[in-house]
Amino acid sequence: MADLPAEARELLESDALAHLVTLNADGSPQMSCVWVGLDGGEIVSGHMATRQKLRNVQRDPRVVLSMEGKSHNNLGLREYLVVHGTARVEEGGAADLLQRLAHAYLGPDVIFPPPEHAGPGGFVLRITPERLGGVGPWAQ
Amino acid sequence: MADLPAEARELLESDALAHLVTLNADGSPQMSCVWVGLDGGEIVSGHMATRQKLRNVQRDPRVVLSMEGKSHNNLGLREYLVVHGTARVEEGGAADLLQRLAHAYLGPDVIFPPPEHAGPGGFVLRITPERLGGVGPWAQ
Repeated sequence: MADLPAEARELLESDALAHLVTLNADGSPQMSCVWVGLDGGEIVSGHMATRQKLRNVQRDPRVVLSMEGKSHNNLGLREYLVVHGTARVEEGGAADLLQRLAHAYLGPDVIFPPPEHAGPGGFVLRITPERLGGVGPWAQ
Repeated sequence: MADLPAEARELLESDALAHLVTLNADGSPQMSCVWVGLDGGEIVSGHMATRQKLRNVQRDPRVVLSMEGKSHNNLGLREYLVVHGTARVEEGGAADLLQRLAHAYLGPDVIFPPPEHAGPGGFVLRITPERLGGVGPWAQ
């Protein structure tokens, strides 16, 4: 597991979207934007229903995600974080996690998921960071 | 080739970063943020030196990229564009393309690449869009 430096943790807990990549059965990349947060050293996202990315992770746990930072480097290029990791799917807990993440992404008073979409089940995707990259203080 | 609707073309020509995914030799996903623009129906990016992503594309042309939009859907979720495509590498023309893209990404008066990094060679990555996804008016 890679340690997450403070600047990376701050970005992972911010309202920046995570561009998450998993691998389809034919080896092609699958990509979507998700909300993420931290649970100890793991990166977590919540999903009310099973999705292609969850099925992909159950077959091949290799994932990568990127997030845009707020700063620019000395060439004027925007900073971004890349995390290479290994993911697993945990059943249940999606609505509670999404509600927690909604405070970062939508605001402190938001109810999310909307009641008609909420429920006790769902899935939590847990990513163990293995290697960091990108442009910024987290890049080695 | 997939047609790019006007809203997707506008985003592809904006200052939004493209999160670009290629496939490493071991099948794992490689990811970096790049500037992109349009050349007719192709998505183009410029690279002054050869890079892992260019070597990857020469071995496996399957790529996917995502870009964040400015709007939100009716659940409050930020729109984003995903483009699945087939890429190829063209030699030369990187500095001219980067200068054109710098006007969108950095400003109308910017000189980019900086003179010490500029040169006649480099590479242009050309992506033929095959399928669009994400959240927004371009998602089917």
